[in-house]
Amino acid sequence: MSDNKYQFISSELRHEMELRLFKVVEQMKDSECQAILVSSNANIYYLSGRFFRGYIYINVEGKTYYFVIRPDVFATEDDVVAIRKPEQIPDMLAERGVAIPESVGLELDDLTVSDYSRLSKAMGVADGPNCSQMLRNARMVKTPYEIRLMKEDGGHQAAAYRRIPRLFKKDMTDLELQVEIERVLRLEGSLGMVRTSGNLMEINMGSVINGENADNPTPYDFAMGGAGQSDSLPVGADGEIMKSGTAVMIDMNGNFNGYQTDMTRTWRIGEVAELAQKAHDCSIAILRELERSALPGVEVCEMYRRAMEIVEGEGLSKYFMGHRQQVAFIGHGVGIQLNEQPPITPKNKVRLQENMTLAIEPKFVIPGVGAVGVENTYVVRPDGLENITIFPENLENLL
Amino acid sequence: MSDNKYQFISSELRHEMELRLFKVVEQMKDSECQAILVSSNANIYYLSGRFFRGYIYINVEGKTYYFVIRPDVFATEDDVVAIRKPEQIPDMLAERGVAIPESVGLELDDLTVSDYSRLSKAMGVADGPNCSQMLRNARMVKTPYEIRLMKEDGGHQAAAYRRIPRLFKKDMTDLELQVEIERVLRLEGSLGMVRTSGNLMEINMGSVINGENADNPTPYDFAMGGAGQSDSLPVGADGEIMKSGTAVMIDMNGNFNGYQTDMTRTWRIGEVAELAQKAHDCSIAILRELERSALPGVEVCEMYRRAMEIVEGEGLSKYFMGHRQQVAFIGHGVGIQLNEQPPITPKNKVRLQENMTLAIEPKFVIPGVGAVGVENTYVVRPDGLENITIFPENLENLL
Repeated sequence: MSDNKYQFISSELRHEMELRLFKVVEQMKDSECQAILVSSNANIYYLSGRFFRGYIYINVEGKTYYFVIRPDVFATEDDVVAIRKPEQIPDMLAERGVAIPESVGLELDDLTVSDYSRLSKAMGVADGPNCSQMLRNARMVKTPYEIRLMKEDGGHQAAAYRRIPRLFKKDMTDLELQVEIERVLRLEGSLGMVRTSGNLMEINMGSVINGENADNPTPYDFAMGGAGQSDSLPVGADGEIMKSGTAVMIDMNGNFNGYQTDMTRTWRIGEVAELAQKAHDCSIAILRELERSALPGVEVCEMYRRAMEIVEGEGLSKYFMGHRQQVAFIGHGVGIQLNEQPPITPKNKVRLQENMTLAIEPKFVIPGVGAVGVENTYVVRPDGLENITIFPENLENLL
Repeated sequence: MSDNKYQFISSELRHEMELRLFKVVEQMKDSECQAILVSSNANIYYLSGRFFRGYIYINVEGKTYYFVIRPDVFATEDDVVAIRKPEQIPDMLAERGVAIPESVGLELDDLTVSDYSRLSKAMGVADGPNCSQMLRNARMVKTPYEIRLMKEDGGHQAAAYRRIPRLFKKDMTDLELQVEIERVLRLEGSLGMVRTSGNLMEINMGSVINGENADNPTPYDFAMGGAGQSDSLPVGADGEIMKSGTAVMIDMNGNFNGYQTDMTRTWRIGEVAELAQKAHDCSIAILRELERSALPGVEVCEMYRRAMEIVEGEGLSKYFMGHRQQVAFIGHGVGIQLNEQPPITPKNKVRLQENMTLAIEPKFVIPGVGAVGVENTYVVRPDGLENITIFPENLENLL
């Protein structure tokens, strides 16, 4: 590519990136930031349509510069500037007649202290504001283009899940089943990676939990647990044979294009205790209720409250969202990262907005049987939630 | 586990953890830290033998407390303390008669600014020293137990690589081959995850690069590139059919137990240009030379210098460690994380020590053919490097 330089943002994506930029600038106007310097992987991708190593500078008028350290393959445009190190940014801006304002926001929720020290010194902006929350808020409501990508994910994920009954074999271990599902997902186009926010979600491609293992608590911020294969990564499948009378919960990632859907289905292996069937049906009932009542303007804590009301009505509280270790949570925003805004928790007063995308996962752990329940990814629409992970939800028998 | 609490550190691992602690305390004595508070995933695992959510407090006398937020399943021992949030740590220490010293090191290379602000406030230790480098140094030289785990990895990884020629089919894409290798690695026990340091190594389970794709530069800190499947994750296989006359480089991760080996082998598809064979043989020659000459006491830049001398002698400089985009680097420490100390670069004057573990990867990109070369993981021994990724190295034909 030394002669043939690439276009940095394809003309197809230009309009989309302007739309995203507009959303960020709207957030910036309500903040103390006169400009921001973006550096996290997820936000670099969000604001350019690609991952590159470098920085994106945006001021409150919307003027944007992409400072690219690596790779060095892009045609020089007015707004695309090749640099070797962040210390060059002020000079590069000065050459373009841009004065760095007093208050430049940096991503304090993502930058390490060491990287922050270097970057703030390079920019001459010590003790500037934190722009992480602003960027999370901008990303919380999706554009039509983003929703289209997520619908593609949902289609691919459902196509892979459709093959699960044929992948199952009697006396298989949970891990053996997971590996075959991973293969089908990858052949369907999965990137094989889950992008998450923070350091409390290490995982490979998702989780398959069966039987008693569902009650092993995890240190991670996942809804469900499992002992995992190693004390170094204590979550998910533990390698036990899946026995008759248990349930197996499949919560595998759907990242096929940089965006992802989150979708869980549960199968039973032979006949399971009535309590497990009841809990699974309760999960579906919660989803039906929220699909109807989670309208724009509703506070997300109200979604949690309605779910709990149904759970308590069925007398299932002690199994809800875990058993030995429970979490007060029924879902989360999803998009570029698996754990986006808003988390659906008892105290979160964020109000639903049209085109938010939410993964809702009312799950139960039934001792002796395993985890049951369903998770769908939804788009918030004027008349309720639109499911974009369409696939049968009943507790079908794998045997 | 509400009644049956688990032992936090198994008696089998107690001695090993004491050994690691001793190494950290030795580093601490040479530093300004009177105590450290460890919080990163890799170091939590290193110092306890498991991943948990919480903190490890160590003072310069070696007195250690494990503050565990999640999971809540461990028997209370003198040194294992359940907490809900870091703000409880000072009181918990005070109850045990421990006064927090003035200079408490935190992991500034890993903590985000936001997490650091909260933690330093909770501990009352603003502007304390950075203990990241100290912990990296302690981990750089492995214990016999760690080397045993890494040798297990090497054995598993070689067992999986042995099946690669049977996984290959004519007219397969690079991705299809990668997916079958991932499956074999997972069935062999791979955890399916690569633990890395920093944010510049996003990847799923490794890289398969073939033909022209080897010359597509990546923004990431990997030795080799590749366009990847998506602009959101631009590295590795791009989904093209592997044609006759090309080479395919397999660099898939070997994390089977929390530690990992790093191992690359290259196969040719039919007959390849003589230049590719020559470059591949040069890679093997570099490894043979370094196995002999990389003795304890040698500076790692000297390893780089010797490698470059061989490369230049063969007239292959313009293809070494990339072609359109080159990197000045031939290897790196490896262990819990893929990119540990020391990086083997032209200017790094760190001296080799017995029981360091190094991945050495002299690679070439040959236009029209692809990437060639070999990578092994080694233990530094008194008489040279011991290869722990034993597998044939020649450029064999997959057709």
